[in-house]
Amino acid sequence: MASKKTKLRVFALGGLHEIGKNMYVLEYGDDIIVVDCGVMFPEDDQLGIDLVIPDFTYLTKNKDKIRGVFLTHGHEDHIGAVPYFCREFNVPLYGTLLTLGLAELKLKEHNLLGTTERIVVSPGETITAGKHFQIEFISVTHSIAGAVALAIRTPVGLVVHSGDFKVDHTPMQGDRMDLQRFAELGKKGVLLFMCDSTNVEYKGYTISERTVGETFHNIFNQSASRRIMVATFSSNIPRIQQIVKAAEDYNRKVAFVGRSMLNVVKTASELKCLDIPDRVMIDVSEINNYPDEQLVIITTGSQGEPMSALARMAASDHRQVEIKPGDRIIISASSIPGNEKSISRVINDLFKKGADVIYEGLAEIHTSGHAKQEEIKLLHALVQPRFFMPIHGEYKHLKHHKELACTMGTPRDNVFIQGIGDVLELGAENCKTAGSVPSGQVLVDGLGVGDVGSIVLKDRRHLSQDGIIIVVISFNGEEGTVAAGPDIISRGFVYVRESENLMEEARNIVKKALDKCEDRNIVEWSYIKTQIRDNLKEYVWQKTKRSPMILPVIMEV
Amino acid sequence: MASKKTKLRVFALGGLHEIGKNMYVLEYGDDIIVVDCGVMFPEDDQLGIDLVIPDFTYLTKNKDKIRGVFLTHGHEDHIGAVPYFCREFNVPLYGTLLTLGLAELKLKEHNLLGTTERIVVSPGETITAGKHFQIEFISVTHSIAGAVALAIRTPVGLVVHSGDFKVDHTPMQGDRMDLQRFAELGKKGVLLFMCDSTNVEYKGYTISERTVGETFHNIFNQSASRRIMVATFSSNIPRIQQIVKAAEDYNRKVAFVGRSMLNVVKTASELKCLDIPDRVMIDVSEINNYPDEQLVIITTGSQGEPMSALARMAASDHRQVEIKPGDRIIISASSIPGNEKSISRVINDLFKKGADVIYEGLAEIHTSGHAKQEEIKLLHALVQPRFFMPIHGEYKHLKHHKELACTMGTPRDNVFIQGIGDVLELGAENCKTAGSVPSGQVLVDGLGVGDVGSIVLKDRRHLSQDGIIIVVISFNGEEGTVAAGPDIISRGFVYVRESENLMEEARNIVKKALDKCEDRNIVEWSYIKTQIRDNLKEYVWQKTKRSPMILPVIMEV
Repeated sequence: MASKKTKLRVFALGGLHEIGKNMYVLEYGDDIIVVDCGVMFPEDDQLGIDLVIPDFTYLTKNKDKIRGVFLTHGHEDHIGAVPYFCREFNVPLYGTLLTLGLAELKLKEHNLLGTTERIVVSPGETITAGKHFQIEFISVTHSIAGAVALAIRTPVGLVVHSGDFKVDHTPMQGDRMDLQRFAELGKKGVLLFMCDSTNVEYKGYTISERTVGETFHNIFNQSASRRIMVATFSSNIPRIQQIVKAAEDYNRKVAFVGRSMLNVVKTASELKCLDIPDRVMIDVSEINNYPDEQLVIITTGSQGEPMSALARMAASDHRQVEIKPGDRIIISASSIPGNEKSISRVINDLFKKGADVIYEGLAEIHTSGHAKQEEIKLLHALVQPRFFMPIHGEYKHLKHHKELACTMGTPRDNVFIQGIGDVLELGAENCKTAGSVPSGQVLVDGLGVGDVGSIVLKDRRHLSQDGIIIVVISFNGEEGTVAAGPDIISRGFVYVRESENLMEEARNIVKKALDKCEDRNIVEWSYIKTQIRDNLKEYVWQKTKRSPMILPVIMEV
Repeated sequence: MASKKTKLRVFALGGLHEIGKNMYVLEYGDDIIVVDCGVMFPEDDQLGIDLVIPDFTYLTKNKDKIRGVFLTHGHEDHIGAVPYFCREFNVPLYGTLLTLGLAELKLKEHNLLGTTERIVVSPGETITAGKHFQIEFISVTHSIAGAVALAIRTPVGLVVHSGDFKVDHTPMQGDRMDLQRFAELGKKGVLLFMCDSTNVEYKGYTISERTVGETFHNIFNQSASRRIMVATFSSNIPRIQQIVKAAEDYNRKVAFVGRSMLNVVKTASELKCLDIPDRVMIDVSEINNYPDEQLVIITTGSQGEPMSALARMAASDHRQVEIKPGDRIIISASSIPGNEKSISRVINDLFKKGADVIYEGLAEIHTSGHAKQEEIKLLHALVQPRFFMPIHGEYKHLKHHKELACTMGTPRDNVFIQGIGDVLELGAENCKTAGSVPSGQVLVDGLGVGDVGSIVLKDRRHLSQDGIIIVVISFNGEEGTVAAGPDIISRGFVYVRESENLMEEARNIVKKALDKCEDRNIVEWSYIKTQIRDNLKEYVWQKTKRSPMILPVIMEV
């Protein structure tokens, strides 16, 4: 416990594949600060799950120590769990204007706006949190405005947390990356650097947002008589600003479609983070008042999400917008791994309707928000930390980032790839891993937080593969004989109408199992159920090579 | 019907997203020939499905007309449905040595080897099929040896079907692409060209297989003391040949791992399509007799398939091979859309075990088997068809291929993008779409072919999202009163132990619904079931915002 008092402890509470992300904790003595509070999206095998949030167990146990949550930027994987957090913890949220604006949208949905303290911080400002922490906001460039890195002064030394960043010297919106400040801090001495690893596998530089703007201008220029639609992330406000600018330049009106798009545009406009002149913006209900060549529709659905506006349009299932032959549709995004097939499906459907679709690979209509190798090296060169902890990425990215840091002069032993919950313990002169804290994934399904666990998911997977066969039997309580049944019902297994023989034979199998139990005077329900399950399972497998869930239900009348 | 007799009809019977692939049919008068007989892999929403095969309905109705199946090459999407076809149709299979060798592996598994006639054809040979067709095999290069295009002479003119191809001037194995023959045919006049569209979105040329060989040599050269493992497609025999060659050059033994890898290597070796000297090949059980620097293990699992050898090794779940720190593992494949996340998971797990993994994007360790724009243009320039039908790809690819064909001089009206089952009808001077035939996807689940349809899949999807609640009640037949129950059982819904109140309240809801029915003297089971379902559904949604399947079961005792 001594070390806990005089050492800085750093660890992640949320993440995927055992790798930290979404929420980091810094603890010294009686003070805890939280960096980011994001959601993860469910994996393919987390069936029916809406969201995954970090495990707050450690924080719950140390509730009184928490001095605040510091949000680096407004993306879902950094702010999405804010309402779930604020339900449980009454501590202030710190962030830039846009970051907090987007967080407030979520708090509002959960009726938590009145009870949550929010403190707007500008890049360059420093916040004191408890007795031991001072947190300085440093401007970085990313695919959203208002992104910051954090320089965290602690009793043992300075920690720099990069947040998500790229080095865009010509950003569309907001400040440039404050490279001078990184240099200054590096010169003074940085104990620990925590740095974004997302794009570390890619050589060179990520292209500037402005380059994408040039592509838009070219496409707009070549689309004289066509209606233009652009699908992008609603949070990519610099991108939206560029599209609006191109629309202005080519005398087009802009209409927004999709719930999150409308929400974010409204919030960003109110906060002056997005500038849409009144003469440019129209409501989507007005699009029929304008000829095609005077319209740009900006929509959600760049990931092919089945319920998104673009997917609905592609399926002729959108109330307000119908795709027409000749529409020029730009998917201004790259596919997040796992979404490739959904995106392709939407693109195919749009082409089938006669639209002309421009997407990833066909033109420079998107750029990443994350730094590639040369940019990451630049930051290492400026910060020159004593200890280094790669963050934000899968294990393979952290591994590559470690190699990169070593080539930049950080001694191999000073680089720490930390699993989720693994504690990094720092003194002024040393750093080591020191045990772990409870951490991991808490699943959100509808209103339930954490009530769907591994057993329920296992059942869902089983049900999804081969369905279920339910065997119902009524026993006569007094005599221990079968009063009714066995009845057999299946769902998700086979077309019953075409498999009557199979189901009839299944009934016979169950009857035989019951007879055997009766012959042997067995009345234990659990044993009878096991007999039914085993015999039926064997029969069904032999006949179909499938293993539906088999659920015997016994009633006593 | 007159046209049917004097016209050539061309259509697809299998495919994804309403686009033909896997099986094409050519029909003239009383003759039908089938080109390819492949499987598709199930989409994400086809839960529990093992394979998808073409709909043979049209062929079943015209059984006596079928003169043979012509296989262009031995990939799953071109030969995978052969056993399902041969179960139903007794017609000869035509293919090159390796193609038939791989098809025979499948026939053997289904006990169909004895009853299926197979005829080996070499490139350059011509087969007469019925009165109206002559089919010439033309050598093409692809990511498997023995790939061919087909030149099909019909009474109305010549049809050229490219098969899958790339223009590899320096293939690792087998003949070069017979460009002269394509030129010759083009010069004589081609009525219809059917051409692979898979890579039409990519500019330039697909790199030669030999380039990948150079990368292997470089990596082997830099891996002096390490054990090397390579994951690739078992069907990519040229790739396997290159790895074997690199192993020989660096004095390493080669062991193969994974069921399909062992099968294909055995077959290809027996057919002399793969040359592995005895002194090079060892059994995987012998690997511990050799030091790391003398070993190469070639394995399945390049797509991260959970049951594959590589995935098992990554999960420490393989009986014979254990990953060791320092192992150099090469994933010599690109990810098939939809597999990105599984592959990443395996790569992360391998890195965690201390292996050094080289994969797509990090080095030129893979090349596509499909032609890019310049190669496709070359083929158009040689063939110069009158009519053109892009094949093999999603709708977006066919659309881009149409544009490419137009730039190559094919009149826009002479290009036909055909949906699955859409009939293209050709005379000597004309071509038009003419109705459609039954076609589509037949789902294979275990032993069942076609017994899982949309209702079963819908149930599986429903079950997978929120699970099931089963309500069981026994009614007293004579009195119409409840004899036992309601009992409530759930699977895949919530942890029952933590949700006792919810389940208890659900019972009360059902009881109330039953009481109401009793009060109103309602004894119709269907009505009672509807009441239970509606009331419970409403309650569960309010409490959890989830919609499990609700299944009321009533028994009469």
